[in-house]
Amino acid sequence: MAQTQLSTFFLRIASYNNFPTAAGLASSASGLAALVASLSALYELPQSPSELSRIARQGSGSACRSLFGGFVAWREGTDPSGTDSLAVEVAPQSHWPEMQALICVVSDKKKGTSSTAGMQRTVQTSPLLQERLRIVPGRMDAIEKAIEARDFATFANITMVDSNQFHAVCLDTQPPIFYLNDVSRSVIALVEELNRAAGSPIAAYTFDAGPNAVIYALEENMAVVIKAVQKYFPTEEAFEDRLAAGEKVQAARIPERFNEAVVPSWEKGAVKSLIHTKVGDGPRKLSADKGLLKEDGTPKVLA
Amino acid sequence: MAQTQLSTFFLRIASYNNFPTAAGLASSASGLAALVASLSALYELPQSPSELSRIARQGSGSACRSLFGGFVAWREGTDPSGTDSLAVEVAPQSHWPEMQALICVVSDKKKGTSSTAGMQRTVQTSPLLQERLRIVPGRMDAIEKAIEARDFATFANITMVDSNQFHAVCLDTQPPIFYLNDVSRSVIALVEELNRAAGSPIAAYTFDAGPNAVIYALEENMAVVIKAVQKYFPTEEAFEDRLAAGEKVQAARIPERFNEAVVPSWEKGAVKSLIHTKVGDGPRKLSADKGLLKEDGTPKVLA
Repeated sequence: MAQTQLSTFFLRIASYNNFPTAAGLASSASGLAALVASLSALYELPQSPSELSRIARQGSGSACRSLFGGFVAWREGTDPSGTDSLAVEVAPQSHWPEMQALICVVSDKKKGTSSTAGMQRTVQTSPLLQERLRIVPGRMDAIEKAIEARDFATFANITMVDSNQFHAVCLDTQPPIFYLNDVSRSVIALVEELNRAAGSPIAAYTFDAGPNAVIYALEENMAVVIKAVQKYFPTEEAFEDRLAAGEKVQAARIPERFNEAVVPSWEKGAVKSLIHTKVGDGPRKLSADKGLLKEDGTPKVLA
Repeated sequence: MAQTQLSTFFLRIASYNNFPTAAGLASSASGLAALVASLSALYELPQSPSELSRIARQGSGSACRSLFGGFVAWREGTDPSGTDSLAVEVAPQSHWPEMQALICVVSDKKKGTSSTAGMQRTVQTSPLLQERLRIVPGRMDAIEKAIEARDFATFANITMVDSNQFHAVCLDTQPPIFYLNDVSRSVIALVEELNRAAGSPIAAYTFDAGPNAVIYALEENMAVVIKAVQKYFPTEEAFEDRLAAGEKVQAARIPERFNEAVVPSWEKGAVKSLIHTKVGDGPRKLSADKGLLKEDGTPKVLA
């Protein structure tokens, strides 16, 4: 039987995500980026990652960033059509492999505002947003320089003030939008106090359109961050550490100058689970060798 | 015995406050204003209320507003010495006596930031504050016009957006300042939904440097506001309504279009107590007729 053209096949797409969904943790961005990367690999398309980024952006804004490994910036672009608004790699994974993240999945019973609808309302009603739009480009330049110089303190400060300013303009929206809850506030208090006690920033929090915290720290400081988070926010689920830092966490010591009084303790489960991860290398083709076609040239169909 | 000069007497000052203290509800402002007003009355000082306002401001900034009845504005002033930063009466109590307030005293275990220290940190570190300082004068003019015109909808909208913007710049402070907690957020959600369901603003929330809500409403709408607040935030303490609106609250009906799903219900005690009050007439000399001196001209001493 003659080989059939792959492009004439129907596709069955099976999508799995090992990340919490609808939690403001960009799981839909990762899914859409994976879809675009998979189709591009399947059809052996000639597009560069930047071009794929532009395509992925149409499914979910932040998906444009997920086509790359390393440190990625989403450029605003200047064309009114938006076609030059795409992501670029600022530095590869190998540039600063010590950068790690601890994601605190925060329980929140309340129905939140979707990030797209929320941002549209902010654009329409926040008087402070215009000022923020004047501030952000300078911060982007400064944080890219900090990444280039592997300057964690500067990276941390910009990360935190910019997260807070994003949530400030959400609050300046009419009606106001709240993504942070009392648990989020306590995570902020914990990181601020850790940094104060350490004498310089060893960790940085950031919150997207939801109450979940992402805490960045260099590998050498992540153990103490995990230790502190586990102490103040005991999780229901056992912590399966993907990066196996368990022994280091046991040995870690919270700085002596840490003032326990400023961080409220929470009942078990206020933080549901923790995910310990690090800078990645971007989309990977996992089943390349196994092949997608049967010997007779027809596609394999999953059971 | 010759009459002694009052100014040579020692004073024993007994100060009582029937308002929750250290709760971000300006109880210290009311106490300092009462002290200044009492001393001025005792010594029969010639100062005008505006001059007394300037003196009271030195004890607590917002005390300058509490020397008046009715609707009061705190003028920024232009003199670098700050001596012309004082309060003036925008409209007397009789101009809009229907204006009432429901104060929701919110429980908060966390240690807060003092309002003076917090504001200093905001001035030093918030990039958005400068923009807010450009916005506020226009809002002051607009809300004074709304009071003059007894335009509740405009009054309500400005009150709410400005409260939110104040808390936005607190969040834009480094480290960030949070006065609102999850209960405060829910009170905001309740008022926003009440207004949406009513078709136009019937209530307005505002929050000072703490989690407690002050909800303004005209007398005709306050009953439904109290009914809704009591439903979603049952208090531990029985509600002793100073303005005795109990029957009206019983008869009040929450608008049919009210969407229950958007307001989280809270366990008993999340709002500790309610205070129902209205625009007042300023400081009053309560014991004027009883006299402060004994028949022999010496001061009365309290047991």
